[in-house]
Amino acid sequence: MINYPGGSGKKTAPVHKTSASNRGMNLEKDINQSNQFYLDTDRAVIHKKPTPVTIVKVDYPKRSAAKITEAYFKIPSTTDYNGIYRGKYIDFEAKECALKTSFPLKSIHPHQVTHLESVMRHGAIAFVIVRFTHLDETMLVPADRMAAFIHETERSSIPYSWFQDNGYAVPSSYQAPVDYLKTVDQVYFQNKNTEEVSS
Amino acid sequence: MINYPGGSGKKTAPVHKTSASNRGMNLEKDINQSNQFYLDTDRAVIHKKPTPVTIVKVDYPKRSAAKITEAYFKIPSTTDYNGIYRGKYIDFEAKECALKTSFPLKSIHPHQVTHLESVMRHGAIAFVIVRFTHLDETMLVPADRMAAFIHETERSSIPYSWFQDNGYAVPSSYQAPVDYLKTVDQVYFQNKNTEEVSS
Repeated sequence: MINYPGGSGKKTAPVHKTSASNRGMNLEKDINQSNQFYLDTDRAVIHKKPTPVTIVKVDYPKRSAAKITEAYFKIPSTTDYNGIYRGKYIDFEAKECALKTSFPLKSIHPHQVTHLESVMRHGAIAFVIVRFTHLDETMLVPADRMAAFIHETERSSIPYSWFQDNGYAVPSSYQAPVDYLKTVDQVYFQNKNTEEVSS
Repeated sequence: MINYPGGSGKKTAPVHKTSASNRGMNLEKDINQSNQFYLDTDRAVIHKKPTPVTIVKVDYPKRSAAKITEAYFKIPSTTDYNGIYRGKYIDFEAKECALKTSFPLKSIHPHQVTHLESVMRHGAIAFVIVRFTHLDETMLVPADRMAAFIHETERSSIPYSWFQDNGYAVPSSYQAPVDYLKTVDQVYFQNKNTEEVSS
């Protein structure tokens, strides 16, 4: 018997398959858990917005909850996450990227870029969290840098090397699997720099 | 022929009936239009959050959009509206009230009161917009005052007279039917007071 590559032989290791509908769910789960930890410890109030849907038909059965029987997904006009931290309005989008060498720009909707630029003009802390799943690497990219790149480029993706130059590593802890507020402190409040200077 | 009260005689005037499912929709529509005007004129970025639903079943028909065929309404854990204005995080809930003399406290979910208190601790501008539909009167009530009343009272409603003492009138204009940022300026930025003092 011949073991074809990827065949069903004895040696096939378990593969974590990410279906299209499940894509990005791990990062979302990790961020939600981190936000819950921030909320429980009263460090910040940041929530994921509900998925926008257009509700077409609702049944009101007697003695039970209203049931939506026809609805469609809407294109989001804003980002998924916003809230308040250290007195500042905070706004971001989060995306998982399965590719190793680049981040496809179609992952971020133009409406969302426009939204991030709008909130920045009004004084927000705005960024994108990108997780390169193959590298298990999670980065925070300030929205102004990403928007500038998107406006200037004619490419359909951002190379991974650009993220190495423009992104900041997001640490992980047991209670906050995506502990992005540590990175926010470093990038926007320069806590770390102050510590480095004083030592 | 006897015309019974509310009967179908000649003289019955058209009555604007507000069904349970439609209740509060006019205020929502007016606020959404105002937010769009604020966005178009780059005055603020404030959006209504999508209605939170738990999606149970989705059909993926070939060659057409994914169709949600089973979903249920979730109790919201936050308020409906948030965003940024003059560099500050802004957060509020909006409620229509059909009663003339009081506002039923069951209109506002305890989760929402907790949420408003959390964001206030972090430096947010937080309030509730209440419209008394019979009086066609729209008021902004700072969330700290409403939360204090709710915690102290054993009543199941807030009397209208309390709103007269603690609320601020929200003006209306053609482009912003609920021009609440004018009231926010007055209450939280004291623009009007400054003008009054300097005149």
